[in-house]
Amino acid sequence: MTPTVRSSASSGRIRSAAYASKVMSAADAVKFIQSNDTVAISGFASAGTPKVIIPALADRIRQVRGTGANFTINLLTGASVSPDTERALAEIDGIGLRMPYQSEATARKKINEGRMDYVDIHLSHVAQQVWTGYYGTVDVAVVEVSGVTEMGELVPSASIGNNKTWLDVAKKVILEVNSWVPEGVEGMHDVYYGTALPPNRKPIPLTRVQDRIGQPTFRVDPDKVVAVVETNHRDQASALTPPDEVSEAIAGHVLDFFDYEVRNGRLPADTLLPLQAGIGNVANAVLGGLDRGSYKGLTCYSEVIQDSMLRLIKDGTVAHASSTALALSEAGIEELNANIDFYRNHITLRPQEISNHPEVVRRLGVIAMNGMLEADIYGNVNSTHVMGTKIMNGIGGSGDFARNGYVSMFLSPSTAKGGAISSIVPMTPHVDHTEHDSQVLVTEHGLADLRGLSPRRRARLIIDKCAHPEYRPMLHDYFTRAESLPGAGHTPHILGEAFSFHQRFRETGSMRL
Amino acid sequence: MTPTVRSSASSGRIRSAAYASKVMSAADAVKFIQSNDTVAISGFASAGTPKVIIPALADRIRQVRGTGANFTINLLTGASVSPDTERALAEIDGIGLRMPYQSEATARKKINEGRMDYVDIHLSHVAQQVWTGYYGTVDVAVVEVSGVTEMGELVPSASIGNNKTWLDVAKKVILEVNSWVPEGVEGMHDVYYGTALPPNRKPIPLTRVQDRIGQPTFRVDPDKVVAVVETNHRDQASALTPPDEVSEAIAGHVLDFFDYEVRNGRLPADTLLPLQAGIGNVANAVLGGLDRGSYKGLTCYSEVIQDSMLRLIKDGTVAHASSTALALSEAGIEELNANIDFYRNHITLRPQEISNHPEVVRRLGVIAMNGMLEADIYGNVNSTHVMGTKIMNGIGGSGDFARNGYVSMFLSPSTAKGGAISSIVPMTPHVDHTEHDSQVLVTEHGLADLRGLSPRRRARLIIDKCAHPEYRPMLHDYFTRAESLPGAGHTPHILGEAFSFHQRFRETGSMRL
Repeated sequence: MTPTVRSSASSGRIRSAAYASKVMSAADAVKFIQSNDTVAISGFASAGTPKVIIPALADRIRQVRGTGANFTINLLTGASVSPDTERALAEIDGIGLRMPYQSEATARKKINEGRMDYVDIHLSHVAQQVWTGYYGTVDVAVVEVSGVTEMGELVPSASIGNNKTWLDVAKKVILEVNSWVPEGVEGMHDVYYGTALPPNRKPIPLTRVQDRIGQPTFRVDPDKVVAVVETNHRDQASALTPPDEVSEAIAGHVLDFFDYEVRNGRLPADTLLPLQAGIGNVANAVLGGLDRGSYKGLTCYSEVIQDSMLRLIKDGTVAHASSTALALSEAGIEELNANIDFYRNHITLRPQEISNHPEVVRRLGVIAMNGMLEADIYGNVNSTHVMGTKIMNGIGGSGDFARNGYVSMFLSPSTAKGGAISSIVPMTPHVDHTEHDSQVLVTEHGLADLRGLSPRRRARLIIDKCAHPEYRPMLHDYFTRAESLPGAGHTPHILGEAFSFHQRFRETGSMRL
Repeated sequence: MTPTVRSSASSGRIRSAAYASKVMSAADAVKFIQSNDTVAISGFASAGTPKVIIPALADRIRQVRGTGANFTINLLTGASVSPDTERALAEIDGIGLRMPYQSEATARKKINEGRMDYVDIHLSHVAQQVWTGYYGTVDVAVVEVSGVTEMGELVPSASIGNNKTWLDVAKKVILEVNSWVPEGVEGMHDVYYGTALPPNRKPIPLTRVQDRIGQPTFRVDPDKVVAVVETNHRDQASALTPPDEVSEAIAGHVLDFFDYEVRNGRLPADTLLPLQAGIGNVANAVLGGLDRGSYKGLTCYSEVIQDSMLRLIKDGTVAHASSTALALSEAGIEELNANIDFYRNHITLRPQEISNHPEVVRRLGVIAMNGMLEADIYGNVNSTHVMGTKIMNGIGGSGDFARNGYVSMFLSPSTAKGGAISSIVPMTPHVDHTEHDSQVLVTEHGLADLRGLSPRRRARLIIDKCAHPEYRPMLHDYFTRAESLPGAGHTPHILGEAFSFHQRFRETGSMRL
């Protein structure tokens, strides 16, 4: 195969002649990808997903199938990638195995139909497990970058995710150089090259959110780079639901809790400890409420940066935010790109191995705030499986932060589907975070501080503070009857009724009696 | 209150005059403990439990109650303590709140009856949570040591557990100086004084199992030491069940897996990576089998050291073992004490905050091997709750190692109670380790390597490799029917039948059909 090589790059982003000589079309580049290959691509929460290569790969898969051959790949990413990209491969059943996180409707449907294998692991575990070989050989890495330096190093784009690892371990590398990403992004990244496999691991020398412990660019063996594709495509924007009454109420409880902790000497006044918040409008509302307090110079150590963060940085509420990706709306993207020189000094993007690393999360004392689908009366949390069986997205980094954070909070509206689903249930039919890892539950109705409480005390508090009033009598009834059983035990349950809420929803469309 | 002070210490273990002047009887010492106090005591897996002070406290509680007053304490420990000690307080309902682990029948009964609050948290989280104030003020620390140096520092005994933290945070300290512990133990301990609360945490500079990063003694503010009690009592021995056919078979599968990983370049030959094994005869059998291989110079990074480890150290199979406690039989204790100068060079005892620290466990790449009560067909693990409601012991350190280890294995006989209980069930009614944290399941029938597998693939493998043959058809039947439901989802379940095995056991005494 001799792909058409253009003699020079056109965007000016490829400052190395060796790489300029490898520029080709996406259609030619994807000829380096074969069926059954494990393909590791860039992308974390839309940001930094390759824009033209994956659609070209989908075309190639269709073409090859037209000849009667089969063609699927195993797809590894940072986390979710841009929905269009995920869909392009999912809708043609082009993905055999998917890892480690997805949030796109077509892919979700295929997974739930058993037509796509999906492996749902902690985001901090991905790099090491792939490096170790748990997922076999990575045949091809497809990585979006914003430029190539004179020395052949790569300037990342709007996310890092697992790109450092993909470039290290892949046999072949295809680069997508995106000139849409502002050049001013160069210097916003901190790529740590100190990781190793045991027994050669050393401490990660990061002790403050703003610490730089690596370099602003990726290294790559130039001999592995088989193709360079130029593009000038926008990142797909993240959806942004504005805060509503419920998310504002949740945020209010969280902010009150911070005040309470400060008053009790468990959190530093003014600066608190580094904040982590998952994606979504609840997280956005919590962060958005921070500038109403007296906080100045806060820090965030998270896996994504949402729109609200830009505002907090701009008004000085947040001094520095570290993440592995940007997850911005159209307006947020415009704001960032227009003021990239300002934001570059207040935002650090890191490999997700570092943004989510248990060592660093524990050391920094991160305040972990993650969403959930439901919690049970003892504080076990289901983040992934609707009614226990259907995957929603995946665990993502929630476990990395919840387990290792200084305080671990789970936030959710008390109901879903107009009240037909209670987020507090007798028992969750899937557990992503155990009772050992959830310390504070919050809904719009209140906050349950579970620290130091035995299961029976947790149950009463969760029902009274967090459950929707409509569901409280049903939950109290379950718990009271469970507790009064002979030999009720440390964590009383009535196994035959533990999923009665879920079964009723299946049968009647509502968990209500 | 003026306790009777003996003018000089008798054992020669108290080399500081200031401490010798505080020697008194246990009965006098416990007068410093008041009702509702939070009392933090030494002890981890029996080793290093105070011998005479807690029985004296039980006497005091009975005396005070004789006057019509109530008297309970909140009891914090390293993990389990000697059964006699736990029982002395539990049988008189002397414990209001118990944290973080217990394994004694009377205490377990009280907890399951709802008469003793029990909080079951990761052992690596205890020190930081108490330090932070999640459990209120620690009023009194009662710590066994083997001696007091001229400078007033304390030589630990056969466990460290949380003693460093107890001595740091308690308002009052009562020491029990035990001259039964051989003097040669001095130097076996490595007490790290570099921990801090965020935002002041620094990397823990431990990169090899044998590294010494602290000092051999505890520091304590002498003004806080209100009493010193001398004793010469033996540690209660840990029960040791010799390996049987089942545990030998499990060990065989584990050793085969190590060979497989070495052949595939995922584990270093000869030395593997640091081993962690829980307590019990299965762990003992796995470790005991290691000297049959070609291994030399292995290391262990665990929370306890059992008898088998002494033999492996003696014959050179293990070069160094780190833990927070010894959990030895009578014979093991004799062996250790008789050869303390030899073992001191091959064993390091550390605070459990360090022995179980996620940062260190992940860095070292620990091979985590923990027991379980049961696992479900998707790899969720129940380590704590019999039939979902009755606590057995607690999660202990299993989560610290399972989450952060290089490879995370759970081991169990495939059945219990003569076959009436299957250790593989459709769904576990309590989850301590989620599917995201279990990579390898092992029973005497085989080993299921779950790495990189989606839930449906995991189910087939777990049933075929790990379940007892008698239960395989029932499990396949459940899974097949769940998978064939319309909208079965990523993780198929039949919620109305998910606990059918457990309900049948409750009703008939057997999970068998």
